[in-house]
Amino acid sequence: MECGAAVGSPGGRYLRATVAYDGTDFHGFQVQVGQRTVQGALEDALATIIQQNVRVIGAGRTDSGVHGLGQVVAFRTRWRHSFSDLHRAWNAVLPDDIAVWSLCEAEAEFHPRFDAKSRRYRYTIWNYPVRNPLLRRMALWVPQALDVRRMVEASSLLIGEHDFGTLGSPPQGDNTVRRVLRASWTQEGNRLYLDIEANAFLYRMARSIVGTLLQVGTGERSVAQFKCLFVAADRGLAGPTAPANGLCLMAIQY
Amino acid sequence: MECGAAVGSPGGRYLRATVAYDGTDFHGFQVQVGQRTVQGALEDALATIIQQNVRVIGAGRTDSGVHGLGQVVAFRTRWRHSFSDLHRAWNAVLPDDIAVWSLCEAEAEFHPRFDAKSRRYRYTIWNYPVRNPLLRRMALWVPQALDVRRMVEASSLLIGEHDFGTLGSPPQGDNTVRRVLRASWTQEGNRLYLDIEANAFLYRMARSIVGTLLQVGTGERSVAQFKCLFVAADRGLAGPTAPANGLCLMAIQY
Repeated sequence: MECGAAVGSPGGRYLRATVAYDGTDFHGFQVQVGQRTVQGALEDALATIIQQNVRVIGAGRTDSGVHGLGQVVAFRTRWRHSFSDLHRAWNAVLPDDIAVWSLCEAEAEFHPRFDAKSRRYRYTIWNYPVRNPLLRRMALWVPQALDVRRMVEASSLLIGEHDFGTLGSPPQGDNTVRRVLRASWTQEGNRLYLDIEANAFLYRMARSIVGTLLQVGTGERSVAQFKCLFVAADRGLAGPTAPANGLCLMAIQY
Repeated sequence: MECGAAVGSPGGRYLRATVAYDGTDFHGFQVQVGQRTVQGALEDALATIIQQNVRVIGAGRTDSGVHGLGQVVAFRTRWRHSFSDLHRAWNAVLPDDIAVWSLCEAEAEFHPRFDAKSRRYRYTIWNYPVRNPLLRRMALWVPQALDVRRMVEASSLLIGEHDFGTLGSPPQGDNTVRRVLRASWTQEGNRLYLDIEANAFLYRMARSIVGTLLQVGTGERSVAQFKCLFVAADRGLAGPTAPANGLCLMAIQY
């Protein structure tokens, strides 16, 4: 839970935290005026405890409705007491759809976004003719039968460094080349999970991959067609973007 | 999904359904005036579709906040079309926190509660120093370390036919003897599950068992003390009733 000692000068401590949230009732991670956001909730809670405005920097700007189990944030604070006191107070003040897993001192030059070597997301699908009320906040319901073997075959094409211009939009600049380290499907009863890890993700990339792979799973596109549209690096060729509720930011590697 | 053909006389068909619900926003199963209940939602949806007041009988009257994945209900209707049409329409009209897994013709003498041979419940615990926002609706958060080995030892005492007078109140009459067929713990990472099956449950029995076993897990009571209070069949000796949100009615055997 804790990874640092209670030392440091007032006003100048630089901390790092791992954060979990149910994204259902947030308008995404990043602060927006008049909207409930994860960053806003983290900053408001810190302001209540420390009586100081704090700017929290996140590793990934998850979209509205996307969940987090391994989001990483960093912030500067003049907190003088122990990390475990701040950790306890932060979790006590935060609303019940956010929690701070761990809190520790960050290295002076640490940047949660720029220093990340890779991000891992999990997408959850409930694949059954009837929807599951207990999973509705955390999984996409797909009533049609899915050919998982073909989805696995198509996903394997994503591994490696490629131009992902079809499957996502660049958040800034034109570079759409990314390196996918893992894209694996797991089946547990009627649940299907896609675990996808990349050095970085384009805007909507994980959900665009899922939406397009689901077209392969239902037979709407063949694996060969998937390969063609992927190689074309043309955003207009992608399938639909899968809904946010199935997506969760699981972990960030540094 | 379906287990019968579309035959039968109007006004006289007797149907059986298996139902799932997220109990968080319901005041339990049973209809109560002015409250949102599972039974009420099922009946309202049928009334909308069939244009007829329908009384739904449930197998288990789950408490406020308790979830269901295998609740069984039965009802009479004059529906003249196919079961699959009614099944589809019912799921379309129901709110997103209830779904009907299956619908079929029931035998004439079938009673969901009186004919049940056993019920199985699952209780889910998130056992970690920090709460999990993604499990908050479905699991009890227990931050303290638990001695699962001792909880397993204590639960094994429950198996068989015993007077459960300590661990539950009789819903009607004085008979507090019940037969527990299974009481097994499973650990998956920081999640703990108690699967408990009995011929029938006293009022609050599953949650009373969990609350008392957790006292054994934290060391507040020894296994020997648990045995004493269990054998005494005295409701006043039970530990606290565990919260409803961790409990789910999984299946009913006929």
